[in-house]
This record gives sequence, structure tokens and C-alpha cells, in this order.
Amino acid sequence: MSDEHKITTSVEIYGYTYKIVGTETSGHMRQVASMVDESMREFHAMNPSLDSSKLAVLTAVNTAHEYLKLKERVEQLENELRKLKG
Amino acid sequence: MSDEHKITTSVEIYGYTYKIVGTETSGHMRQVASMVDESMREFHAMNPSLDSSKLAVLTAVNTAHEYLKLKERVEQLENELRKLKG
Repeated sequence: MSDEHKITTSVEIYGYTYKIVGTETSGHMRQVASMVDESMREFHAMNPSLDSSKLAVLTAVNTAHEYLKLKERVEQLENELRKLKG
Repeated sequence: MSDEHKITTSVEIYGYTYKIVGTETSGHMRQVASMVDESMREFHAMNPSLDSSKLAVLTAVNTAHEYLKLKERVEQLENELRKLKG
């Protein structure tokens, strides 16, 4: 990743500000941050006794679960496409 | 979600044990937990001063980013399939 393509975005997640450096647009990174922030707030509403570390771990677990399900869907679609293209 | 389909899996993530209840197999949940655990350890190796809450938030952010990228890929494949099927 060359320096000229790096974009730094400040995002707020569960009351803390994080500086995220990457090649994605600030809009994309804000969407990502907002997903994590919302999920942590939802887990807090369901389990008010959990600290922020456990809320973040549960959010990470949930997102990783959704990621793996989507990965299976990609494989399924790619197989279907391969068959159609013969 | 009916009670008879609920599966409880104990997983260890970054030194803590979490009981996860859901409809997925224990194997799937252990794979998910292992993704999160590994990512937190990688972020710790890169930034040893970060506490576990921030390591988990960064892991959640990274996974949400990968999830959104994969979601775009699914939409792209679904469009391609629609065109091929006419």
C-alpha cells in the first residue's frame, strides 16, 4: 500500500474516537464504524452488565458469523455461474 | 427460534470463555471464535499498548469491512446470474 493512497478517517465507536488508516473511502469506513457502534449498543441493551470489551467481542463474533455465511453464499453463486457458463 | 434447535457452545476468545447460544453447529461457532481470537492477537502484536476492548473493536471493524466487501461481491454475482438467465 503506497502512502499516496492512504486515507485517514476519524470515527466514533461506543464513545471512543478511532483513527482508521486505509485505502477505502471515508464514507465506507464511516459505514463500517456505524455498523460496529450500533451492534455494541444493541448488545448493551440486551446485556446491560457486560463491559465494552465483551460487547465488542460479541459484535466481532456476530460479524464474523455473518461474514462466513456470506462467504458460503459467494461460493454457491460462483458454482452456479460456472455451470451456466459451461 | 424454537428451543429444541438451540445449541450452546463454549468458546475461548482472548483468554475469556463465552457461551454462545444459537442454531449454528458447534463447529461453525468454534471457527467464528477462532477468527476473532486470532485477529485480536494479531492486532495486539501490532499495537501492544491497546487494551482488549480496543483490540476487539478493531477486530469488529475489520470484520465488518470484509463483510461489506463480500456483500458487494454477492450483489455483483447475483446481477451476473440474472443477466445470464435472461
